[in-house]
Amino acid sequence: MERNIYLKTVTLEEALALFASKTEENFRLKTEDIPVTDAYGRITSEPVYAKCSNPNYNASAMDGIMVPSHLTLSADERRPLQLKKGRDFKFVDTGDVIEAPYDSVIMIEDVQVIDEETVEILAPSYPWMNVRMVGEDFVIGEMLLTRHHLVKAVDLGALISGGIETLQVLKKLRVGLIPTGSEIVDIGTTLKPGDILESNTRMFAGLVLENGGEPQRYPIVPDDKEMLRKALIKAASENDIVIINAGSSAGSEDYTASLIAELGEVWVHGIDIKPGKPAILGAIGGKPVVGIPGYPVSAYMTFKHFVVPMLTRMPDTTKTQEALLSQAVPSSLKHKEFVRVQLGRVNDKIIATPLKRGAASTMSLVKANGILTIDKASEGYPAGTMVSVEMTRNHLDLNDGLVAIGSHDLIMDWISDIMMTEKYRTYVLSAHTGSLGGIMAIKRGEAHLAPIHLLDEATGTYNMAEINRYLKGQKMVLIKGIKRWQGFYTRMGDQPVMDFSQIVRDKLQFVNRQKGSGTRLLTDYFLKKEGVVPSEVEGYQTEVLTHTAVALAVKTGNADVGIGIESVARQMALDYYPLAKEDYDFLVPFSQFDLPVVQDFIRVLQSEAFRTRLNAAGGYELEELVFITVVSNNL
Amino acid sequence: MERNIYLKTVTLEEALALFASKTEENFRLKTEDIPVTDAYGRITSEPVYAKCSNPNYNASAMDGIMVPSHLTLSADERRPLQLKKGRDFKFVDTGDVIEAPYDSVIMIEDVQVIDEETVEILAPSYPWMNVRMVGEDFVIGEMLLTRHHLVKAVDLGALISGGIETLQVLKKLRVGLIPTGSEIVDIGTTLKPGDILESNTRMFAGLVLENGGEPQRYPIVPDDKEMLRKALIKAASENDIVIINAGSSAGSEDYTASLIAELGEVWVHGIDIKPGKPAILGAIGGKPVVGIPGYPVSAYMTFKHFVVPMLTRMPDTTKTQEALLSQAVPSSLKHKEFVRVQLGRVNDKIIATPLKRGAASTMSLVKANGILTIDKASEGYPAGTMVSVEMTRNHLDLNDGLVAIGSHDLIMDWISDIMMTEKYRTYVLSAHTGSLGGIMAIKRGEAHLAPIHLLDEATGTYNMAEINRYLKGQKMVLIKGIKRWQGFYTRMGDQPVMDFSQIVRDKLQFVNRQKGSGTRLLTDYFLKKEGVVPSEVEGYQTEVLTHTAVALAVKTGNADVGIGIESVARQMALDYYPLAKEDYDFLVPFSQFDLPVVQDFIRVLQSEAFRTRLNAAGGYELEELVFITVVSNNL
Repeated sequence: MERNIYLKTVTLEEALALFASKTEENFRLKTEDIPVTDAYGRITSEPVYAKCSNPNYNASAMDGIMVPSHLTLSADERRPLQLKKGRDFKFVDTGDVIEAPYDSVIMIEDVQVIDEETVEILAPSYPWMNVRMVGEDFVIGEMLLTRHHLVKAVDLGALISGGIETLQVLKKLRVGLIPTGSEIVDIGTTLKPGDILESNTRMFAGLVLENGGEPQRYPIVPDDKEMLRKALIKAASENDIVIINAGSSAGSEDYTASLIAELGEVWVHGIDIKPGKPAILGAIGGKPVVGIPGYPVSAYMTFKHFVVPMLTRMPDTTKTQEALLSQAVPSSLKHKEFVRVQLGRVNDKIIATPLKRGAASTMSLVKANGILTIDKASEGYPAGTMVSVEMTRNHLDLNDGLVAIGSHDLIMDWISDIMMTEKYRTYVLSAHTGSLGGIMAIKRGEAHLAPIHLLDEATGTYNMAEINRYLKGQKMVLIKGIKRWQGFYTRMGDQPVMDFSQIVRDKLQFVNRQKGSGTRLLTDYFLKKEGVVPSEVEGYQTEVLTHTAVALAVKTGNADVGIGIESVARQMALDYYPLAKEDYDFLVPFSQFDLPVVQDFIRVLQSEAFRTRLNAAGGYELEELVFITVVSNNL
Repeated sequence: MERNIYLKTVTLEEALALFASKTEENFRLKTEDIPVTDAYGRITSEPVYAKCSNPNYNASAMDGIMVPSHLTLSADERRPLQLKKGRDFKFVDTGDVIEAPYDSVIMIEDVQVIDEETVEILAPSYPWMNVRMVGEDFVIGEMLLTRHHLVKAVDLGALISGGIETLQVLKKLRVGLIPTGSEIVDIGTTLKPGDILESNTRMFAGLVLENGGEPQRYPIVPDDKEMLRKALIKAASENDIVIINAGSSAGSEDYTASLIAELGEVWVHGIDIKPGKPAILGAIGGKPVVGIPGYPVSAYMTFKHFVVPMLTRMPDTTKTQEALLSQAVPSSLKHKEFVRVQLGRVNDKIIATPLKRGAASTMSLVKANGILTIDKASEGYPAGTMVSVEMTRNHLDLNDGLVAIGSHDLIMDWISDIMMTEKYRTYVLSAHTGSLGGIMAIKRGEAHLAPIHLLDEATGTYNMAEINRYLKGQKMVLIKGIKRWQGFYTRMGDQPVMDFSQIVRDKLQFVNRQKGSGTRLLTDYFLKKEGVVPSEVEGYQTEVLTHTAVALAVKTGNADVGIGIESVARQMALDYYPLAKEDYDFLVPFSQFDLPVVQDFIRVLQSEAFRTRLNAAGGYELEELVFITVVSNNL
């Protein structure tokens, strides 16, 4: 059995420097001349100088009459001056040439037409009045664009007016993408256990397009050294850069590194970053070859660091944003680490909320609008640290994001979707921390809104007790009106579960929610009510974070029973036995209530589209919304 | 003579609301199904739900061995545990299926291989260790994307892993672009006076692409009503939206509005915005038709307001940035006005510097990275106001822009170009206010650097006197080393000009630079030296803002002589008679000196590329750079 355990791991900085120096000569000066009309989105390879001035003659800036200004000096409201066509003036339209003896234009609105040949004016003109002089915009020889300028639509106007017909731009690089792995299958395949849908090279193709290159994707190559050799040779001959995906870890199907070394050279194998460690950098026939690890987040990070800079031939043009970290992000000293975060603006602070850290979490890439880098020498950051975050999703405005932190419910997805219709310009950034986590985020000023459903055991009421406990002296608005049902989940066809006594009696495996979640409070409330001691419930210690995670544990047999909302049971096709109807409320600081993001959220709650969605999902009751202003006191 | 003077001007808000309500039904629900692999850059038309969980089986997260965790409990560093292949463990690679009785994975690095059949471990595993559980990333039925989500590369991974094969997206809209005007000519035409190169519909084509539509540009239509009628009918039949450019002002060739009314309907003619007033909104055969004014900035603004929202079917997704206005921006109460600005970050403040305001200035569009809106009801803003600026050029990071305000020299363009090479990630934002304007911007903390060349009449030295006068108590660095020649410009072949006495004697028309510019000081210094009184110099009162503007005035005969730098005389093919060599220095606040943007600037000054460029331009001498730290005192 052969296993390459890679040992010569280098830092990201070393790898980048080495790769840049090795590939530099290949990626300089590859340019092409294109018609300026095709230049949109291309990158200039040299500065562009105007070949003519704009305007390139003295031009009328108005519709009106052109006159020699010295003839008009006596015109006055009390003594209108008559001018004769041909002798004293000519009609002109915007853009017409102004030539001697004419030197000024009087706009048509200020001209009184007397007859075919005569007009009258009430005020004099002065030299060059309403005339755009030669070169007013730019002059011949002026630099219109620097090199390495990304040509946008507005630049085309200046280029064409400057007489540019052909433009020298950086040539688009062809990137060959080879997916590998015997367990990898293409879209459209019926999946067997162990099959993985090939998605990384599809993502790479998007990234190549996004950065101005031309992707060329090859068929999936199984773990067969000879087939891989053929694919590599073909791709290296047909492209400027070759990407080979997966096959770069120390697994047994690992031929990639040895093959690249055999066909060309390997410069780096293993880079101290997380996610993304087992990357390979090398070349075949002078073409850079990058071996990229299989986990989607690792794949993204490796591609971004090594392939994107070659495509744009510009240094990293990502934007950074200073932000306040809402949760601690510990990190080991072993790697440079990249953490996906959600950035949102609350109370004039930009808040960064860390997302799932697994290298396999594609949803962390979808939900992230920023990436936080933690240096190898750092053990991470405590909550409340100001950090510098690299922004992704540049088309979204942070000012328009509603930061919602708290309890998990499908409702938040539906609201988010409805907010994305034409009616609203705001969108939802939601994080699931449980109800109490939401209250704490509100207390720290890190969220606009917290969905909460905290049962007070003593009074049987929802939310007011906890608000009074944690938010003393803070003025809040509590939005009430949504009721939802929670109950027991079991696998379809299993025996019904009606209470905890039965769970203990039948030794059923339970799956619990995390402390601080409303569902956990509900669980503990019913245990107490039934007089069941938690330690008697098998699996009481097993905590998961969402309703869907509970449903999944039951569905897959990791547990027999759990508690969650009705809508998720329906979605996941589980049996469901109702336990309690609860208030699912939204807590908003009074100071945030009038913000457009919050008002849009409320408009969605009141919309017909939302009501229809709730009814279709089942397990909810929507009442008239009630807005309760709360100021907790110290009593 | 027929002239339509449009009278029923409406506000932008009225026009937008009317247009939205009139066009709404046409632009709803036009969708199409496309393969997910083509989805990059498209916009979802409905929420997307996962069709399978990810992962959809319990999967090994590591290369290693899978074991039933209960077998490993006794393993310990002092008491290694031996496991038998087949009975106790199986080798697995990342992504392999984990099935009962196995429930955990020990990574290969922690496994000691004894022989073909036996391994040894030093620590126990626990249930689900190194296993990615079913649905860990997302579960079946989970919302992956909301509707109206712009699909980026990273989203493709989640979609494919979620079993999405086809995606419903908004259909791309076809936009027909008709350029009109008898004075308009296409690229490649040899220009006669009065000819204007058609560039607006090329810019529109870029904007259509930028916003996800399909542009279709038609040949230029001269000002002929019948030809225009045919073009409109054809375009309306072949596209979803029709844009007709120019022909919407009150000029005599104005058939557009009456033709649209004849073939369909006109809703609006004239909108109270500046630039952009004479716009037409209407429809032909149910297809929206937008008549757009001819000036490039007006054209851009009108397109942005009325066409872009139809293309994206999303509310305005532009980003705004609060910024400090560096100069006053007065505005009339007649229109809603849009001012192009340059945004840059200095001293933790974002500074907005207004650019040229003419509707014809294509360079203001090229140089702007933001647009400031001034409401109709506002008379504008004084300098120092905090304003909200809509950002354009979203790919540039404001943190990387060097804000240079002061004297005008071609040098600044060259430095800007060299900074755009691979070596640096920073770029230059420069504004030309003259040297004194630069010192004042530094004093107010609104620039990183000021290029200055201020001659002190008393001492004959450069810059130190003015720094002492205006920047008392502030610690500065003055970068010296560039000398440049200034001299008299005359038209080629005209009589040589050696001094001001001659200008007065020969009654030559002079063109002057603005007060506060270094060149103005130089002019006044030589007048005084020669004993010539300014009032004797014809044209002394005519002020322009740049060397190129002086050159242009001489070139076009608006003046006979002016003073400027040698490099511009060469570029504009003028005769040139040297007058003085001056110090062209750069002033940087000490506190900004270590910033990467400033250090990159200095690196350019010291680069071989810069030296080569200066030598080629002529009129400069480059010495060893000297950095003088200055603290002015009150003496």
